[in-house]
Amino acid sequence: MLALISLLAAPPYSPEIAARLVGSALTDGVAYARAAELTDGIGPRLSGSAGAEAAVKWAVQRFRDDGLDVRTEPVKVPHWVRGEERGEVLPARNRSGHLLALTALGGSPGTPQGGISADVVEVRSIAELQSLGDKARGKIVFFNHSMSTAGGKTGYGEASPLRNHGPAEAAKVGAAGALVRSLATASLRDPHTGATTFPDGAPKIPAAAVAVEDAELLHRLLQRGPVQVRLGLGCRTLPDADSANVVADARGREKPDEVVLLGAHLDSWDLAQGAVDDAAGVAVVMEAARLIAQLPQRPRRTVRAVLFMNEENGLAGGKAYAKEHAGEGGRHVAALESDAGAGRPISIGLRAGEGAQALLTPWLQPLETLGVADFGGEAGGADIGPLAALRVPFVGVQQDVSRYFDYHHSAADTLDKIRPFDLAQTAAAVAWVAYALAEMPDALPRPAAPAARGVGGRP
Amino acid sequence: MLALISLLAAPPYSPEIAARLVGSALTDGVAYARAAELTDGIGPRLSGSAGAEAAVKWAVQRFRDDGLDVRTEPVKVPHWVRGEERGEVLPARNRSGHLLALTALGGSPGTPQGGISADVVEVRSIAELQSLGDKARGKIVFFNHSMSTAGGKTGYGEASPLRNHGPAEAAKVGAAGALVRSLATASLRDPHTGATTFPDGAPKIPAAAVAVEDAELLHRLLQRGPVQVRLGLGCRTLPDADSANVVADARGREKPDEVVLLGAHLDSWDLAQGAVDDAAGVAVVMEAARLIAQLPQRPRRTVRAVLFMNEENGLAGGKAYAKEHAGEGGRHVAALESDAGAGRPISIGLRAGEGAQALLTPWLQPLETLGVADFGGEAGGADIGPLAALRVPFVGVQQDVSRYFDYHHSAADTLDKIRPFDLAQTAAAVAWVAYALAEMPDALPRPAAPAARGVGGRP
Repeated sequence: MLALISLLAAPPYSPEIAARLVGSALTDGVAYARAAELTDGIGPRLSGSAGAEAAVKWAVQRFRDDGLDVRTEPVKVPHWVRGEERGEVLPARNRSGHLLALTALGGSPGTPQGGISADVVEVRSIAELQSLGDKARGKIVFFNHSMSTAGGKTGYGEASPLRNHGPAEAAKVGAAGALVRSLATASLRDPHTGATTFPDGAPKIPAAAVAVEDAELLHRLLQRGPVQVRLGLGCRTLPDADSANVVADARGREKPDEVVLLGAHLDSWDLAQGAVDDAAGVAVVMEAARLIAQLPQRPRRTVRAVLFMNEENGLAGGKAYAKEHAGEGGRHVAALESDAGAGRPISIGLRAGEGAQALLTPWLQPLETLGVADFGGEAGGADIGPLAALRVPFVGVQQDVSRYFDYHHSAADTLDKIRPFDLAQTAAAVAWVAYALAEMPDALPRPAAPAARGVGGRP
Repeated sequence: MLALISLLAAPPYSPEIAARLVGSALTDGVAYARAAELTDGIGPRLSGSAGAEAAVKWAVQRFRDDGLDVRTEPVKVPHWVRGEERGEVLPARNRSGHLLALTALGGSPGTPQGGISADVVEVRSIAELQSLGDKARGKIVFFNHSMSTAGGKTGYGEASPLRNHGPAEAAKVGAAGALVRSLATASLRDPHTGATTFPDGAPKIPAAAVAVEDAELLHRLLQRGPVQVRLGLGCRTLPDADSANVVADARGREKPDEVVLLGAHLDSWDLAQGAVDDAAGVAVVMEAARLIAQLPQRPRRTVRAVLFMNEENGLAGGKAYAKEHAGEGGRHVAALESDAGAGRPISIGLRAGEGAQALLTPWLQPLETLGVADFGGEAGGADIGPLAALRVPFVGVQQDVSRYFDYHHSAADTLDKIRPFDLAQTAAAVAWVAYALAEMPDALPRPAAPAARGVGGRP
């Protein structure tokens, strides 16, 4: 047995540090406690809100408590507020009216007082909308593409363009409003909000997400005859607000100018506490940075936690960081974003140059027992997306997202959806991967220049 | 083979009629279509509302179309209306405020303009409330008993007294208001309403159900310090309204004065369409009665469909029927209530005298393939409960209720929760059981007189 063991190559890392980082994350409960502070303590954090500003102050204080070098970097953010909202299917011959469970999409303009009333026209895709020609003019366009969870995928990537761009496309053809089926993998009549985008100077129309049940109701009613909906939205966009990214460094012992960036976003939607999106990611990144900062000896390179502002409705924080640090692209040796909920970690994602996987593999041994030592899935993230242009290697700790879109952007995104041990495992994996990236003698080779279409994640 | 078959006793029923009833219910789609008419066509049907009255008119028309002898029997019903509602945890030192997802309990008084604000005191049971002595005075009592689904039970029987009687008990000890954790087996931040009862002349306080997530939030916050809640409810009780039960007979060919009663309730809560509670039951009962009425030859006894009004918040319909027909207890040879959702049928429940099971067993053979020929579970129902005093035998087609309390009394009780084939199977089972009860030569033996505590089902 001794002979056999001696055959194994000595690991390139310190097993003591691995045990300390992984063991601490799995036992100290700090990640969950931080998620609780940000959700139960602060609550919703939409850009421009009091909650968002409280979150910035809280993060600065906590990073300071943790022994990191912390600063804020200013970001100008959109300031959209929701207001009252109400939708109803108007009564028709032989059928009563129906209240609709709906919520405005972020970025939507409000309706005039009294709302708008119009016939509904249902489409499954933007292409179908465009094929309607003049038939959508004056109508409320109802986008009813369901999320397919076939093949273990979430379907979000396929369906989210309808929410992001469908209303603007409907406005282009003269529609009066837009309703989008919630992007959700479970529903108990709870609509899921999210950003919708109108290009500068293009026409804007009121746009709301309806709950899955209400999408199915509209579909059924439309099969039997015309459906008229009244939509009243009190949302509006205020002048841009001053906010900030929070940047905290655990400076490296040998190459402090080389940076391993760990990102998550402080802002959240306004319907709930933003627990899985993205208090979980904030907690994971904070815990990884904290554990690394408190090691007896820092890793070679700097580990930098960046808590971005405005991921949800503008990406102003991600863009501002990339702009501010454009000259330091070469110093960013890796970036990892944690913005996929609180599920347990399942694999390592990598977007880097040739040979990166071989270089990283021996360092992943301490994650073998956690089941996270295999490569799989994309690495990226909405906030770090702009760094792709600087050819920063992306690394990801992929998580189980099978329940993520049950809660995402809805009122149900609350702390109870975070299972402490799942979150702790992800924090352990991120802490160790971050340490490895900061400690390995050679940095990861850089990826080829990105295609024109970015590599961002899900806003 | 022929010899073997000839060994089997000839069945006591007509296999052709069994095949016709079961086959029709499983293939004609009428039960689901009726459920759709009552939900998508009419919508919420709380007692006293326009929807409830529309449902009465609709049921009369449909029974007439189906060839039944139909009449309405007047019922005076409570008329409670909801109004605006809002709850919030007020900010405290080191923590922000939180909006609460809540909904008034039926029967609750409203709050004064501006709402009430008070400290929250959490209890798990009415006994714990009573042990508090004066500590609940002026407080908002928070009943946080969760529904246990252990052992395949729904937990509703154990938890529902908190909703029904907790607020009245809190009022007795001088509380200012009551919050009750929703009686729910799944939650996406959707509160579940239901009736709460204040005895005549006893003090009343505003009472609301909070979503499961909000109950957990209150629990977490209370572990860290005092929690003050502001509760604003616009609900109120109007004068009693005139309404009706709808009674439709398929008169028997030999003993028309002997009645097999099939019950369900037309009214629903106001938060949704009332699909599983109880459009499903209405559809099942209507389909059973329709199929029996349209047989070439009626069964011996009368099959009577009764669509009760006001099951949800007063049981006025059930009480009125029992009172109106008190002299005909002996003529009611069996009663079956369909008020447990749209799940598939799983067994036969029985509450009757000695020998009833043996008498019924040979008639259940046509349900063997559907998996419904075994006995199990209670028979009863809130509306037919008052008939227990008349010693009417109760028969039940038990259904799969594993998802029932995910939706029950919530905004998520919508048509999409009904799976057409599950509903069709239950309609088939009820149609056949009703036929059997009406056709078998000897009626079921009557049960012993009921215990003081009734045998009603869930309101």
